[in-house]
Amino acid sequence: MADTPDKTFPAVQGGGSLIVAWQVKGKRILVVGGGEVAAGRILNCLNADALVTVVCPPSGLNPEVAHRIAQSQVTHLARKFEPSDLDGADMVLVAVDDPAASSEIWQLCRARRIPANIADVPPECDFYFGSVHCDGPLQIMVSTNGKGPRLASTIRKFIAAALPRDAGRAIETVGALRVKLRAIAPRPEDGPRRMAWMTKVSDKYSWDEMCGFDEEDMANLLRYYPSGKVPELDVLRAMRNGDENQLDVFDGSFGFSVGA
Amino acid sequence: MADTPDKTFPAVQGGGSLIVAWQVKGKRILVVGGGEVAAGRILNCLNADALVTVVCPPSGLNPEVAHRIAQSQVTHLARKFEPSDLDGADMVLVAVDDPAASSEIWQLCRARRIPANIADVPPECDFYFGSVHCDGPLQIMVSTNGKGPRLASTIRKFIAAALPRDAGRAIETVGALRVKLRAIAPRPEDGPRRMAWMTKVSDKYSWDEMCGFDEEDMANLLRYYPSGKVPELDVLRAMRNGDENQLDVFDGSFGFSVGA
Repeated sequence: MADTPDKTFPAVQGGGSLIVAWQVKGKRILVVGGGEVAAGRILNCLNADALVTVVCPPSGLNPEVAHRIAQSQVTHLARKFEPSDLDGADMVLVAVDDPAASSEIWQLCRARRIPANIADVPPECDFYFGSVHCDGPLQIMVSTNGKGPRLASTIRKFIAAALPRDAGRAIETVGALRVKLRAIAPRPEDGPRRMAWMTKVSDKYSWDEMCGFDEEDMANLLRYYPSGKVPELDVLRAMRNGDENQLDVFDGSFGFSVGA
Repeated sequence: MADTPDKTFPAVQGGGSLIVAWQVKGKRILVVGGGEVAAGRILNCLNADALVTVVCPPSGLNPEVAHRIAQSQVTHLARKFEPSDLDGADMVLVAVDDPAASSEIWQLCRARRIPANIADVPPECDFYFGSVHCDGPLQIMVSTNGKGPRLASTIRKFIAAALPRDAGRAIETVGALRVKLRAIAPRPEDGPRRMAWMTKVSDKYSWDEMCGFDEEDMANLLRYYPSGKVPELDVLRAMRNGDENQLDVFDGSFGFSVGA
């Protein structure tokens, strides 16, 4: 699909994938196979709070998969795949060294409209996996769209090294701040105002600065919400020491004070 | 799901999503709505080579969506959503300011097992979007799992700035090298040897070094494949100048020479 150059709107690049954060919490994912590839898939699924069932004869279990089974982190069907295993499955991941059997499972999933990934068989995949960096609520996924899986892992490590160490915590902080804000300004009609203020907060501080915010900082910050203002970092820092004079930055038109 | 600490296997973190690169090339994606959010979704879909249909009355079209329609980048149904619009849809993205209508579409998609995303209604989403950096075949997606959408965008920009400018090109290079390698060692039974050598290549050079590889460098590099070796970067660089003496690093046991 060709795109006409346009100064106003982004040009279509093409050739990529639609990268999405699939919600599998409490969903049933069937993993067919118990080798090294399956072990990686299983960890991805468990990190996303899925209910995982592994179907694989005991002889095919890699030590990590055996560990997950022993820890009851996954359900184990100690035999080969049977079509009825698909009953109730929300997603299917196949990682076995048997192209014919894999293809058969793919066809069954197609017929039932169950999203599936057959490892190492790109045409038999509704989706691919990439290399994912996890840090608390922060997830960063690197995909090379099949051009260099190894390089994807290298880039993921590069990014992990470049990120401030507490990046995940900064996000927890922002998430917590949003929840606290909603508690003090709960009405739906406050939505736009809440959102505008959160945007101001995100724009005011670098996210490594936000890594350093503690509960006290957040409580102090929220005192500014009624004014619609966001303090400079040094002002916020000074408030840590109980330097109430800093509150002079309020313009006085708001008498409202937040749970101080 | 609690995880017992184990020195050998990664602990389950939980709380994340299953981040995947959905394959939508040639797939039909129905976008309900034509506002700003829809515009962003549509671009994501077009960048992934999907066939996009937008259903929205003409009065609801944002300028970018109108531009995509005028450029025939998407199909336009100039009216409100009708259930029959779901016929043949592989995925549905809803971005309209009408919670009741949205919920109804979500229920219809559930019944038909069509993956769907209702913007701003997390419980009515099979998947979320994140902030995506695209550079050719390289795609990096940042998700904060709903804790800080704005921060996700900040982190994406941070990563984009930290990456070498030609990162996408490095990946094209590795992809091209893999294709060329497959041409000179095409047999399925060469697979493990090919993969082992590509791994050596990925481990030998930093990926910003690979950004600089041109066609000649790749041809020179491939001459090492029969030996199973990968030359030091300075050796490869020296070969650019036709310094054939560098080829002394071959141990002589391979007479095979690659398309020089």
